[in-house]
Amino acid sequence: MQQTFINYVKKMQNYSEALSVIYWDMRTGAPRKGLEQRAEVVGTLSAELFALQTSDELGKILSELQNEKLDFVTQRLYEEVKKEYDESKKIPAEEFKAYTILKAKSEAAWEDAKGKSDFQIFLPYLKEVIDYQKRFVQYWGIKNGSAYNTLLDKYEPNMTTDMLDELFGELKATIVPLVKAIGDSKNKPDTSLLFKHFPKSGQHAASLELLKQLGYDFEAGRLDETVHPFMIGLNSGDIRITTKYDEKDFRSAVFGTIHECGHALYEQNIDASLNGLPLSTGASMGIHESQSLFYENIIGRNESFWKHHYAILQKHSPEQFGNVPVDAFLKAINFSEPSLIRIEADELTYPLHIMIRYEIECEIFNGDLQAEDLPRVWNEKYEEYLGIRPQNDAEGVLQDMHWSDGSFGYFPSYALGFMYAAQWKHAMDQDIPNFDELCERGELAPIKDWLTDKVHQYGALKKPNELISEGTGEALSAKYLADYLENKYSQLYNL
Amino acid sequence: MQQTFINYVKKMQNYSEALSVIYWDMRTGAPRKGLEQRAEVVGTLSAELFALQTSDELGKILSELQNEKLDFVTQRLYEEVKKEYDESKKIPAEEFKAYTILKAKSEAAWEDAKGKSDFQIFLPYLKEVIDYQKRFVQYWGIKNGSAYNTLLDKYEPNMTTDMLDELFGELKATIVPLVKAIGDSKNKPDTSLLFKHFPKSGQHAASLELLKQLGYDFEAGRLDETVHPFMIGLNSGDIRITTKYDEKDFRSAVFGTIHECGHALYEQNIDASLNGLPLSTGASMGIHESQSLFYENIIGRNESFWKHHYAILQKHSPEQFGNVPVDAFLKAINFSEPSLIRIEADELTYPLHIMIRYEIECEIFNGDLQAEDLPRVWNEKYEEYLGIRPQNDAEGVLQDMHWSDGSFGYFPSYALGFMYAAQWKHAMDQDIPNFDELCERGELAPIKDWLTDKVHQYGALKKPNELISEGTGEALSAKYLADYLENKYSQLYNL
Repeated sequence: MQQTFINYVKKMQNYSEALSVIYWDMRTGAPRKGLEQRAEVVGTLSAELFALQTSDELGKILSELQNEKLDFVTQRLYEEVKKEYDESKKIPAEEFKAYTILKAKSEAAWEDAKGKSDFQIFLPYLKEVIDYQKRFVQYWGIKNGSAYNTLLDKYEPNMTTDMLDELFGELKATIVPLVKAIGDSKNKPDTSLLFKHFPKSGQHAASLELLKQLGYDFEAGRLDETVHPFMIGLNSGDIRITTKYDEKDFRSAVFGTIHECGHALYEQNIDASLNGLPLSTGASMGIHESQSLFYENIIGRNESFWKHHYAILQKHSPEQFGNVPVDAFLKAINFSEPSLIRIEADELTYPLHIMIRYEIECEIFNGDLQAEDLPRVWNEKYEEYLGIRPQNDAEGVLQDMHWSDGSFGYFPSYALGFMYAAQWKHAMDQDIPNFDELCERGELAPIKDWLTDKVHQYGALKKPNELISEGTGEALSAKYLADYLENKYSQLYNL
Repeated sequence: MQQTFINYVKKMQNYSEALSVIYWDMRTGAPRKGLEQRAEVVGTLSAELFALQTSDELGKILSELQNEKLDFVTQRLYEEVKKEYDESKKIPAEEFKAYTILKAKSEAAWEDAKGKSDFQIFLPYLKEVIDYQKRFVQYWGIKNGSAYNTLLDKYEPNMTTDMLDELFGELKATIVPLVKAIGDSKNKPDTSLLFKHFPKSGQHAASLELLKQLGYDFEAGRLDETVHPFMIGLNSGDIRITTKYDEKDFRSAVFGTIHECGHALYEQNIDASLNGLPLSTGASMGIHESQSLFYENIIGRNESFWKHHYAILQKHSPEQFGNVPVDAFLKAINFSEPSLIRIEADELTYPLHIMIRYEIECEIFNGDLQAEDLPRVWNEKYEEYLGIRPQNDAEGVLQDMHWSDGSFGYFPSYALGFMYAAQWKHAMDQDIPNFDELCERGELAPIKDWLTDKVHQYGALKKPNELISEGTGEALSAKYLADYLENKYSQLYNL
């Protein structure tokens, strides 16, 4: 029965992989006129995958496995598949189908509303999506007394609002005064160099060089261009990334590429024995983000890294960087200032954007915040946390697409990822005391190997809390990120 | 039942399309390390597609449709699906499975054998493939008294050896003396300009410009690079082509691109109502090749075309072409000489390569030629037809992969395509008497529109013989290709 189970799971995974190839293709240059018919293909394969995921045959296999003694990997596989199976089966098929249709409409309405900066266009769909999610939570069951915990668990297993309240509280206590102090400081770096013209071909070449330096395996991946950068793991030997070239702001490509590279290194280094199984993926959204943010921030915004790698940018954009010393470059890329758009925020203010969203989501699912009140609440919270107020819905409540497709509970992963990343760094310092020296010499392999040892190799075999406890010797704490930010920004701004 | 049938067929077509996306991806840059697991995905989808193609459910639908009155499109769809269904069902499932495994091994053995120029490595597999094909012919049934007719019909419906013998006989009577006369002629064009360095980026840019000129729709396609150029129709809004850049011989990219563009224009201009159905493809291999060769040879090796478009090459490789007059360029690209490798042959000698293969295939399936005798027979025929003899198997009997995967009956399509192309041109001359004038002005749209009207729009709705008869007023004849070659080469070489 175990082999039957594994074959069945591999078949599902093969459908997933086919859908991923098609998804990647649609994002990276599939011709416009073929997309409508391609959607039919996606529909056919998705329907078959859903049928496999919810079949009576799978139900029978799972119930027979209950009584068998399983090895560790098969046991974890069983748990993951069972969890998804139960979640799917708990929702009445008709309701799930209606929700799928609603989501497509809601995403389109959100896009339209954002374009016109008019929340009212999106509101009726958002209300419905929230209603569905609230009902789904009832079907799935309330976790530890909080409806929002049920949603959180989908992205970050075992995470709860109690834990988040504490983590975010501690972080907020560090960040808010820092942001204030920087705002009051007379020390303003010159950021004009960021916005000079950097030709796309040069950015592309620089991205390739950086990826090579970071240890990205081009025999198990490729770099392409998309409007929104992403990493996609097709299988463990095919982990692709995309980036975006803005000729007036190289940061989008350079830091985007480094970020996606962090995600890719994770999936490229999962143990090969998990290939073809759904365990060959990240342990959670938060752990995944811990890898991308480790590379983007801990390495990629660090002085020692650029001491060595700045030459790559100077080579590919000599007019822009040729006469700028690396110190000035570092101050510019670490410039911090409250801003309205999450994805453009600097690393210091970024967690505040997440806390705002987290609080709002909690109030929707655990409290009685209504969808129609979101723009007002949103703007008030921006004023409270960041001291600035959106002038319209597009730069406010409509900026992110997450709510349009019902991804409530996802946002905290971004901040959790940063906290995990800082904690990995603290633990790494014990094993690799010469971290900065290695970065300065461009020898990044030992850093990647440490992360592979503690995180990558396990894929989804371990839970996030297991990984962080076993890898760092303690449960997740906000302390390390708070320390990292405190030290770094006090120094940068001479506070 | 008709709607059930159409939905069923569309589902099969969606699986095909998914497999095509994956195939294209594997050829155009999928990372090496992901290919093994991707093969599992292909296996899963292919197995499901095969199950759909041979299911009892489909059998029931088809038998119920027999008694229904169908509109023209559904009737044709029914015939195509029924034909494939019957062919698949006639072969015992176990035998088909064993053959599929053999084919994979045979292809690998052929590659190995070709690399080592050793026919003996390939021989045992080839024997087995031939045995299978002979048995399959028995299952499918002998057509008009000839086993080879059964194979021919798979690629060129309604074509027979009787017809081919006559067509090829007439063509041979023209070509052989022409080749002889050219060989004896003192008139040798200077071809050195062909082999000058033409950077890849310039060839790419020139290919894009030529495609645009020829009417290729980039909103329904894209151009990529592969080792072996091909056209692949994913759906009617997504018809992709690939080409190959040889910096020491631009002809591979330029004529390859024009050739694949001819295939692509066919599929981009099939009537939209057939989209998502298996009828949205070419009528046959021969008709498909008639479009690619119309573009590659009739247009692409024509004086009037280059009078206008030579500037594109001059722009992208000025050192190579800047001081070469178009007349010298035309003589060089139309240089004809007996050679050993089919895919590198010029248009005049090319049909002889096909006739050799056709005669050998006939002797295998209708006579008693044994696989072990193929190298000897091959070499004798090259000596007889082209006056040259391969020095080894790699440049002789092992050069093409077609026999390794059992594609017996395919080769004639290439020569048929050229004959169709010349006949289309003859008919086009009645409707577009100023063909050369249009080419000289770079106004190619009326030419494409004529082909769309006579050929493209119908997809596989009509049979090859219907298309050529209705489009040109008579059955396929070798006369027009013979005339085309006779006129062109007499003039080029002052015979």
